[in-house]
Amino acid sequence: MPAHKKKNVIVGQSGGPTAAINSSLAGVYRTAKDRGYNKVYGMIHGIQGLIEGRYTDLSEHIQDGLDIELLKRTPAAYLGSCRYKLPEICENKELYEKIFDTLTKLEIDCFIYIGGNDSMDTIKKLSDYAIVNGYDIRFVGCPKTIDNDLALTDHTPGYGSAAKYIAASIKEVIRDGYSLETDHGQVIIIEIMGRNAGWLTAAAALSKCEDCDGPDAIYLPEIPFDCDAFIKNVKKLLKEKAFVTIAVSEGLTLADGRYVNELSNEVGYVDAFGHKQLTGTASYLCHLVAEKCGCKTRSIEFSTLQRAASHLASRIDIMEAYNVGGAAMMAADEGDTGKMVVIVRTSNDPYQSTTEVKDVHRIANDERLVPREWITKDGTYVTNEFIQYAKPLIQGEVAPIIVDGLPRHLYKPGFHDLL
Amino acid sequence: MPAHKKKNVIVGQSGGPTAAINSSLAGVYRTAKDRGYNKVYGMIHGIQGLIEGRYTDLSEHIQDGLDIELLKRTPAAYLGSCRYKLPEICENKELYEKIFDTLTKLEIDCFIYIGGNDSMDTIKKLSDYAIVNGYDIRFVGCPKTIDNDLALTDHTPGYGSAAKYIAASIKEVIRDGYSLETDHGQVIIIEIMGRNAGWLTAAAALSKCEDCDGPDAIYLPEIPFDCDAFIKNVKKLLKEKAFVTIAVSEGLTLADGRYVNELSNEVGYVDAFGHKQLTGTASYLCHLVAEKCGCKTRSIEFSTLQRAASHLASRIDIMEAYNVGGAAMMAADEGDTGKMVVIVRTSNDPYQSTTEVKDVHRIANDERLVPREWITKDGTYVTNEFIQYAKPLIQGEVAPIIVDGLPRHLYKPGFHDLL
Repeated sequence: MPAHKKKNVIVGQSGGPTAAINSSLAGVYRTAKDRGYNKVYGMIHGIQGLIEGRYTDLSEHIQDGLDIELLKRTPAAYLGSCRYKLPEICENKELYEKIFDTLTKLEIDCFIYIGGNDSMDTIKKLSDYAIVNGYDIRFVGCPKTIDNDLALTDHTPGYGSAAKYIAASIKEVIRDGYSLETDHGQVIIIEIMGRNAGWLTAAAALSKCEDCDGPDAIYLPEIPFDCDAFIKNVKKLLKEKAFVTIAVSEGLTLADGRYVNELSNEVGYVDAFGHKQLTGTASYLCHLVAEKCGCKTRSIEFSTLQRAASHLASRIDIMEAYNVGGAAMMAADEGDTGKMVVIVRTSNDPYQSTTEVKDVHRIANDERLVPREWITKDGTYVTNEFIQYAKPLIQGEVAPIIVDGLPRHLYKPGFHDLL
Repeated sequence: MPAHKKKNVIVGQSGGPTAAINSSLAGVYRTAKDRGYNKVYGMIHGIQGLIEGRYTDLSEHIQDGLDIELLKRTPAAYLGSCRYKLPEICENKELYEKIFDTLTKLEIDCFIYIGGNDSMDTIKKLSDYAIVNGYDIRFVGCPKTIDNDLALTDHTPGYGSAAKYIAASIKEVIRDGYSLETDHGQVIIIEIMGRNAGWLTAAAALSKCEDCDGPDAIYLPEIPFDCDAFIKNVKKLLKEKAFVTIAVSEGLTLADGRYVNELSNEVGYVDAFGHKQLTGTASYLCHLVAEKCGCKTRSIEFSTLQRAASHLASRIDIMEAYNVGGAAMMAADEGDTGKMVVIVRTSNDPYQSTTEVKDVHRIANDERLVPREWITKDGTYVTNEFIQYAKPLIQGEVAPIIVDGLPRHLYKPGFHDLL
């Protein structure tokens, strides 16, 4: 417990949006208020916005319990996100001084940052700087990423909802595929997000259940991709069944290190800012299958839908995201700094979890991949261990608050001027 | 009322799958049973399957009220669909004789076909043949298509659910887009199904509501597409806002009649069977925008998700599909033939509808486009008249029956052997 009177909190969101990141924001806000903090500020577009002096008073946005419920059901970063990596402290002290001047001006006690690997790097650097320079501000990270690739935590908020959407959508895509006549064979290739970690693509396997066969093959970026072996497998599958569904990660990589989508001239183009677009893997593979197997193909990219589909969020995920936000605020309030909240699975069946805090130095910039032993030997599916791990995370629903036929999101006057 | 004792019914599904086509199947089955018919057969893969002698006894699949509810929530054609157009009667009498031999063998009184334009052509030809050749079999069509392009009916079952999914998903995509920093501008182009009719693409406008701006421009296939005017509009929008969302129809066509996606070398490729793939319009336009406007772009195709998303079906749509199935069965039972059931809107606010039957000769092979006056003068959006028309059709939800975290669909042992 800090000796001085509690003052203010600031919270930011960072990295790729998810369906659960706003639930963590709601958790931080509610716990900060419950614990007697005065103001809760929100950084606009994360640390990047804060550096530019952009922040808002969250009490203007969250005014009652209904706003909390709407926020839990609002996809993407309500406060805006950023992909900004702080320089090393020694490289740009002025920047750190500027940040801490703002934090001092706003009388901040606690700084909560909701994000993934890069965001935890931000917590690490700011907490290091605070300790070295004698600022009594606590910095705590709150995990978030659909990629599920953060170290030390059983899983990350955002993953469960994306996994649920992917599994439910694949069930629908497979039904759709079966319903059309496929005399000459048809191959549907579904592209799922995940540059280096295959957790989300692996979630395609969750669609395999009593009323659905699930995909016939799953290719994760953890295993070097071999086009010849892939085509051989597709040909084998086409002999067994007329309609074949395959889930692939957008980040499939060849043994030589190139992304699969680089094999195509057209797809994976570089935009005006030199950003390599990491989509087009399924599209390229469909071309390849059409050419080599002579069958009908269709590529489907779940695109941003998979990370933004609040309308089909997992209740476990949304509740855990809320709890993790509260736990981060609680940890900071109780004096922790340079820490991240992690989720600990205390029981798998029935599923139960709790939170702990871990040293952010052990988490930042690390990346947790799908363990090799959770992928089948031939690298074309996941094992039952993965299913046991992931299935509890997609359980339960959060009924959308429907207005005039569509899910309602939290929206306050001036929202657009913020972002 | 037929003078003879009621015998059997056969029902088939045809054309592109939808989220509501099985609800019509459930309606046909329930009404046939209520009206005292003995067996209700289902054609496997529509008329094409029937010609090959493929059918099933639906009572093996629908055994109780729960099965009816599951069927209402099952996307795509449960019985399998086909894209088969019957030849003219004079061209292949043997084929018609074969079909009627099967119908006679199965002691069919009523033949119900759930589908779109081509399917109504099937009803037309078979009913003509029956009358000319003295068969006492009634042929009634049940409308279905996400494209909403059937003549004489206010709208078609399947459209409302697809429209709801599209509007809800665009709300989520827009939230996602706003949450990321867009200093240099970003354009998202969403590709929506509809080869000639823009009804579905127009539904993107339904996402504009109290908590969402909706797309900034909507391009329908009804208006010849002009790339220069498009780029000019994008540049104008990018001056007004950093994040621009545009909905386009997959069927956008240039003044010279070519599809827009034909402008690209890569996209819109022809598969092994010579089928031109009508996707890649958004992808091509994204390339064009990146090149001409120098901003970040992302193309999103809703692909088959938009026609299969039972998990977010419209209650109005699913109930109307069920009623229309029942009405088709009722009409056939009462002696109608060569007819299609249409939906008549009796009141817009509060929304109310009823069914009537119309001569299928007036419907088959016709195509209803979005009226020019429902598209803005400059051709880049829809008018309020469209919104008033479409909004009632996306109202209400059909709560999915969730098992182990995922929506359950009707699935009976042997289902896969059927299709």
